[in-house]
Amino acid sequence: MAESVERLQQRVEELERELAQERSRRALGSGDGGGGRARIENMSSEVVDSNPYSRLMALKRMGIVSDYEKIRTFTVAIVGVGGVGSVTAEMLTRCGIGKLLLFDYDKVELANMNRLFFQPHQAGLSKVQAAEHTLRNINPDVLFEVHNYNITTVENFEHFMNRISNGGLEEGKPVDLVLSCVDNFEARMTINTACNELGQTWMESGVSENAVSGHIQLIIPGESACFACAPPLVVAANIDEKTLKREGVCAASLPTTMGVVAGILVQNVLNLLCFSRFLLNFGTVSFYLGYNAMQDFFPTMSMKPNPQCDDRNCRKQQEEYKKKVAALPKQEVIQEEGEIIHEDNEWGIELVSEISEEELKNSSGPIPDLPEGIMVAYTVPQKQEDSVPEVTVEDSGESLEDLMAKMKNM
Amino acid sequence: MAESVERLQQRVEELERELAQERSRRALGSGDGGGGRARIENMSSEVVDSNPYSRLMALKRMGIVSDYEKIRTFTVAIVGVGGVGSVTAEMLTRCGIGKLLLFDYDKVELANMNRLFFQPHQAGLSKVQAAEHTLRNINPDVLFEVHNYNITTVENFEHFMNRISNGGLEEGKPVDLVLSCVDNFEARMTINTACNELGQTWMESGVSENAVSGHIQLIIPGESACFACAPPLVVAANIDEKTLKREGVCAASLPTTMGVVAGILVQNVLNLLCFSRFLLNFGTVSFYLGYNAMQDFFPTMSMKPNPQCDDRNCRKQQEEYKKKVAALPKQEVIQEEGEIIHEDNEWGIELVSEISEEELKNSSGPIPDLPEGIMVAYTVPQKQEDSVPEVTVEDSGESLEDLMAKMKNM
Repeated sequence: MAESVERLQQRVEELERELAQERSRRALGSGDGGGGRARIENMSSEVVDSNPYSRLMALKRMGIVSDYEKIRTFTVAIVGVGGVGSVTAEMLTRCGIGKLLLFDYDKVELANMNRLFFQPHQAGLSKVQAAEHTLRNINPDVLFEVHNYNITTVENFEHFMNRISNGGLEEGKPVDLVLSCVDNFEARMTINTACNELGQTWMESGVSENAVSGHIQLIIPGESACFACAPPLVVAANIDEKTLKREGVCAASLPTTMGVVAGILVQNVLNLLCFSRFLLNFGTVSFYLGYNAMQDFFPTMSMKPNPQCDDRNCRKQQEEYKKKVAALPKQEVIQEEGEIIHEDNEWGIELVSEISEEELKNSSGPIPDLPEGIMVAYTVPQKQEDSVPEVTVEDSGESLEDLMAKMKNM
Repeated sequence: MAESVERLQQRVEELERELAQERSRRALGSGDGGGGRARIENMSSEVVDSNPYSRLMALKRMGIVSDYEKIRTFTVAIVGVGGVGSVTAEMLTRCGIGKLLLFDYDKVELANMNRLFFQPHQAGLSKVQAAEHTLRNINPDVLFEVHNYNITTVENFEHFMNRISNGGLEEGKPVDLVLSCVDNFEARMTINTACNELGQTWMESGVSENAVSGHIQLIIPGESACFACAPPLVVAANIDEKTLKREGVCAASLPTTMGVVAGILVQNVLNLLCFSRFLLNFGTVSFYLGYNAMQDFFPTMSMKPNPQCDDRNCRKQQEEYKKKVAALPKQEVIQEEGEIIHEDNEWGIELVSEISEEELKNSSGPIPDLPEGIMVAYTVPQKQEDSVPEVTVEDSGESLEDLMAKMKNM
C-alpha cells in the first residue's frame, strides 16, 4: 500500500511536469518541438509529401537557379521584427536560409494582431523570443541568433557592429546582408552608420504611417546612395510608435502592404544573393522599388551617392569604390542605347533607372494624389536627360538639410 | 490511507485529462483557446496595447477610409487554401472581415512548408480544418465556414453554388466576393461557371509553375472578361499538383511570390469592398495586375468580355449589363483625353488600361525574357490606338480555342 502511494505520487509529479512543459510550450509559441520535424542534413529534390524543400529545389528543374542549395551558406541580419521584419524572417526561414540574426527590443502586443506572423497567445513575450520559437519550429535547419535590445544606444551599437562583423555562419565572418525593417528614423540612421563604417551591403524597407504605401531600397556603401545621402522616395513612418502612443494616436497598418513589402524585399534578397555571388539566374535587383497600394503603382529607380553626404564613412566608401573601379581592367560595355553598364561592381548590378520620369507620370497619371507621407525625391529635375535620367541628389531643388528637417518633423 | 490513494488516483486522472487536452490543443493547431483573446463586440479606435483593431481603425484618422467598421459586414469565399489562399485568409482574418468561407480538399504536407501559414505539426490535417483552427485563434471575431471537398465534382458543385448564394453573414444572402486561389485550370473554370451563372463578382489569382510570376484579375460577369473569355495574361500553374507528383516532378513555389500575390489580392479586395459599396476612399481596383519577381515588373490592364464567349451565362450577363447601362440615365463623362469613363457600373470602376503598351515595353525593356508560363494576351495589336488601348480578345492574333488548347497542354 505504501508502495502504491509512492508510485501514485511519482506519477502525479511526472504528470505535473509534463503538463507544465506542454503549457510552457504552448505559451512560448505556436506548437513546437513535438509536432515539428527533424533536421535535414542535405536539401533533396525528391518529390515526396514529406520533403519540405521539394518545391524550392524544383527551381533548378525550372531553370530559375542552378544551385539552390547555396542558400544554406548565407547569413542575413534582420533589424526590427515587426510587421515587415517578422514576415521577412519567416520567408527566409521557409526558403532554408543558413542563419538569421534578429534584433528587436519590443514586446508582442494584441495591437500587433492586424499584421501577419504573431499570434494572440504570444502577447507579452519579447518579439525576438516569440519569433525564434515559431521560426525554429517551422524550419529547424536554420540557425538563429536573437538579440533583445535597442541598437541605437551606445553600448548596444558596439555589440550590434560586432555581430554584423562576426555573426556569419562561420563565427568571425561577417553576415552577408543586413535588412532594415524598423519603424523609425533613428534606427534607420543607426543601421546606415554601421553599414557605412563596415562597408556592409544592406536593404532598407518601410511602410508609410497611413499604411497604404511602402518601399524597399538596396544600399551598397560607396556605390549607391546611403540613407543619409538622400531620404527615400517614400518616407516611412518616421514617428516612433512609442512617442505616438503617449499622445493617444498610432500609425495605421495593414497586413497587405506589410506582406507585399516583405515579399518584394525577400525576393530581392534571393535575387541579390543568388545572382551576384554565384552568377545564377535569379533575376535583377531593384535599387529602389516603391508600392502604392491605393493605385497598384510600383515605381523603380536608382540613386547615386551624394559626394557631400554628411556621413564621412559614406564619403570614404565612395572614394574607395572609385579607386576600385579605376584599378579594374576596363570592362565597361557600351550598350546599343548608349547606356553604360558597370560590370565591374561586386554585385554585377546595373545602376540605371528602370523607368523614365515620363513613364512614371504616364503610368498612373501625373502622380497626383500621393498619400500623406510620400515625398518625391526628384521633384525638380531641371535638366531633362534624353533617355534614362539617373536620379542624383543634386537634381533636387530642396537642400538635403531641408528634406531631413521635414522628415524629422513629420 | 485508502482515502489518500483515492485522492491521488483522482489527481492522476485529472492530470491525464488536462495533459490530453493540452496535447490535442497543440496537435490541432498552433496554441489555441487558452492563450488566445476574448471576442470583441465593437471595433474600437482606442490606442492601447490590448486593442487588436487600433492600427486598422487608425486608417480613419489617416483619411484612408471613413468607416472601417463596415468590414465586419462582408463575407468572402476563398476557394483553395494553399500558398496564396491561406495567406489571403489570414490577412482578411487579421483585418477583421465578417465571415470567411473556405473550400479545399487537400491535406497539409511538409512539402507545403516553403510557403507561409501552415506549420510542420499540422502535417496530415485537412487544410481547411488546420486553417480554421489557426485563424479562429488569431481572430475569434470572424465567422468561419469550411468545406473539405473538391468543388469540381457534380454533387459538390451544387453545394458550392448553394453556399455562394446563401452563405453570407445573414444566412440566405449571397457572399460579397469569391476569391479563386486554386492551382489548376479545371477548378478555375468551375468557379468561372458558377460565378457567371450567379452573376457573382470574383477575383482570380495565380502563380506560375516556375514560381517567379503571378497575377490577380477582377471578374465582374458581363462587364469584364471572364476566365473563359480569355486566358489570363500570366497563365498560372496549369498542371494539377497531383498529376505532377505521380510523375515525380512538382511545380516550384516561393513564399515571396505567393505572399506578394496574396497581399495585392487582399488589398484589391479592401479597395473593392470599401470603395464600391460605401463610397469610401480606399483607392482604385485593378482589373488585372501581374507580378514578375525576376524584374520587379507589375503590368496592369483590363479586358472587355468576349461577345463570342463559350460560356452562355457570360454572354447572358453581357446582355444584361448592356440593358442595365442603357436603362440608366446618361452619366458618361467625357474626360480631357477623350476617354469614356463608365460611371454607371455598380462598382464605380473605370474599365481602362492604366498603362499603355508603349509604356509597358519601355518600363522594363521590350518585355524580352518572360519566364516560361507567361503569355502576353495582346501579342498582335495590329491597330495601334493613339492613347489608351483597351485590350479585347479580338485583338489577339490567336483564336481563343488555340489559346485554350495551349493552356490545357502546358
